[in-house]
Amino acid sequence: MTTDIPAGAAVVAQSGGPTAVINQSLVGVVAGLRPALESGLITRVYGARHGVRGMIEDSFVDLGAYPPETLEAVGATPSAALGSTRDKPDAAYCARIVESLKKRDARFLFYIGGNDSSDTCRIVSETARREGHDIRCFHVPKTIDNDLKMNDHTPGFPSAARFVATAFMGDDLDNRAIPGIKINIVMGRHAGFLTGASALARTREGDGPHVVCLPETPFDLDAFTAAVEGAYREHGRCLVAVSEGVQNAAGEPIAVALSSVERERDAHGNVQLSGVGALGDLLSEHLKKALASKGGKPPRVRADTFGYMQRYWPDPSPVDACEARGVGAFAAACALEGKEHGSVAIVRASSEPYKAAFELVQLTDVAAKTRHMDPAFIGEGFDVTPAYLEYLRPLVGTLPGFARL
Amino acid sequence: MTTDIPAGAAVVAQSGGPTAVINQSLVGVVAGLRPALESGLITRVYGARHGVRGMIEDSFVDLGAYPPETLEAVGATPSAALGSTRDKPDAAYCARIVESLKKRDARFLFYIGGNDSSDTCRIVSETARREGHDIRCFHVPKTIDNDLKMNDHTPGFPSAARFVATAFMGDDLDNRAIPGIKINIVMGRHAGFLTGASALARTREGDGPHVVCLPETPFDLDAFTAAVEGAYREHGRCLVAVSEGVQNAAGEPIAVALSSVERERDAHGNVQLSGVGALGDLLSEHLKKALASKGGKPPRVRADTFGYMQRYWPDPSPVDACEARGVGAFAAACALEGKEHGSVAIVRASSEPYKAAFELVQLTDVAAKTRHMDPAFIGEGFDVTPAYLEYLRPLVGTLPGFARL
Repeated sequence: MTTDIPAGAAVVAQSGGPTAVINQSLVGVVAGLRPALESGLITRVYGARHGVRGMIEDSFVDLGAYPPETLEAVGATPSAALGSTRDKPDAAYCARIVESLKKRDARFLFYIGGNDSSDTCRIVSETARREGHDIRCFHVPKTIDNDLKMNDHTPGFPSAARFVATAFMGDDLDNRAIPGIKINIVMGRHAGFLTGASALARTREGDGPHVVCLPETPFDLDAFTAAVEGAYREHGRCLVAVSEGVQNAAGEPIAVALSSVERERDAHGNVQLSGVGALGDLLSEHLKKALASKGGKPPRVRADTFGYMQRYWPDPSPVDACEARGVGAFAAACALEGKEHGSVAIVRASSEPYKAAFELVQLTDVAAKTRHMDPAFIGEGFDVTPAYLEYLRPLVGTLPGFARL
Repeated sequence: MTTDIPAGAAVVAQSGGPTAVINQSLVGVVAGLRPALESGLITRVYGARHGVRGMIEDSFVDLGAYPPETLEAVGATPSAALGSTRDKPDAAYCARIVESLKKRDARFLFYIGGNDSSDTCRIVSETARREGHDIRCFHVPKTIDNDLKMNDHTPGFPSAARFVATAFMGDDLDNRAIPGIKINIVMGRHAGFLTGASALARTREGDGPHVVCLPETPFDLDAFTAAVEGAYREHGRCLVAVSEGVQNAAGEPIAVALSSVERERDAHGNVQLSGVGALGDLLSEHLKKALASKGGKPPRVRADTFGYMQRYWPDPSPVDACEARGVGAFAAACALEGKEHGSVAIVRASSEPYKAAFELVQLTDVAAKTRHMDPAFIGEGFDVTPAYLEYLRPLVGTLPGFARL
């Protein structure tokens, strides 16, 4: 629905885990609002510090006052420049947000984040309307997990995927140089997109990752062990990508399941810390024991957990940087066209040549929903399909070209 | 000592943990030998697969047969293109190496690696001489740990330091966006150079890392806890760099010491796996408990362990790439000048402008010795000194420039 545009201020904020390009979206919103700011239709463009928390604490910066070159530099900087938050506002919290926005005479809210942020937009929008106050809420998508409905992919994901693919390219060479079993734990608790990006690292027959474990597929420890053993026999080495969110068929996280197994084995009892590195370390320990018992000396097994680097590494995919800017600018344009609320979505207009378009969809289509990998992307036997790699390849930019002897 | 040059083949090999630039050294040796190969003084330039292991298994490739453009591309590729090895040859193993080299009519050995490789050069050289066979052994330095004696720094280290500094720059922004305590475990079991490189990430007052734990300084858990708590109070957040090799005053690794503490605390007993992620996870767990007990809700604490990426990330320091090529070419030049053996060392000719030079030092000056951080580089209270950063800065290349709001 399009209506007359209320005059007043705009508020922009960032939420959830930072990404390499979330500031591009911030800068995109400000740039998109600039003409209206100059014409006086928009009175101010505020940035709220640390998302919704800055709103209820009345902590704002005047983004319109920054020179464009500063904003350009901020756009090229990873992590959330306004600060972010893990707060998930309920109705009472949202009422305080509305109160704060009214005090600032804010008529527009642009919230850059994942599906929780979309839900916040929805509640704020409804709360304001109930109070007879017109606040137009726009959700600007962001998540390295790529798990927003209605989107071909989400800003932040291509850069994280680029990082994961590059890391696996390097790690595959490392694993060739000193053969063994290497496990890398990849982010994405519920969706396997990022873990699957590891498969982009393959450029020749025999390249790793040789085993890819997605959270969408129930993790069977015996099948996993057999797959690793098979690759190890075939290649004399094995590179493994495991999502941090893998679960067994009972829905139990694998780190928990493996801790129990270890406890049973160990007469002294065994309490595994639930740390970040636990899953990789437990899988390593399991493989060492399982493969050594087949005779011969235990293989070299090592696990790395990629961690936060996946969301801040300052080498963004050019497509991602451009689209992240684009979704911000598109949200601003929608507001200035008189749209009342919505969530910006990226749709794929064409794959070859790759071309994306933006749409404004309903907040409720995205809010608090999680998208998983399309079954067509999930392969048999611990892998993604070629269709997934075709989907992913145009998003990540040019990967390094390596030579071998 | 300089003597007449024996005609025959040359063997090049790579050893130990790969680096982002170890292939530059390989290509440097081949390029340096090229004129002698063309003149016939050198009959072949062999690459041994997987270091000394390829020598005793007679697994060689003919490096002289590769077109220069392939070698250039290999030089720009991280990880050891010939394959590497963890084998540390004893006298008997070295006798087999000499036998293999004689069979190939090899008169020159160029071994690219750390202090173990230097020791291998020494033993092979002595063994051959004892047998009346002239094999000229040259050690070409490589290690991200930067722990070779006689060297201002070692090829591979600047690129790893660049990675660590860049990661901390990104992580500091991430930690600002969602404040908490973040620990990053950095490679370097015995020398703190790489952990100290985290301090290069600071560009403004208040930037992290706020606490830097080097393996050269005995790790006092109470002092560490107080330092983290102090930074957390001051900044509302704390970024911590910890060497994987930190030990208490008794020489016990901290992960082991912390596991014992946990065991005592836990009535059910507690066996901590000795995995890669254990140190970070245990320190996190400790800080959560220690800081929560001071009242209030426990702070967000998270640890990442940087892992192998530090040695393969494909964004080398330009200085490092150039010097890694240089030490290889210099080793070849020394051989062609009639030098009988030695280890190439990088000395700093000038700091401003930065300029390095290469020297050939005695194998025994480097072999099986470990260099630690100069006391002048180690600061009071969990930090490096400005002198260390002055030493390091010219080596890592331009770091990303980030902007803030």
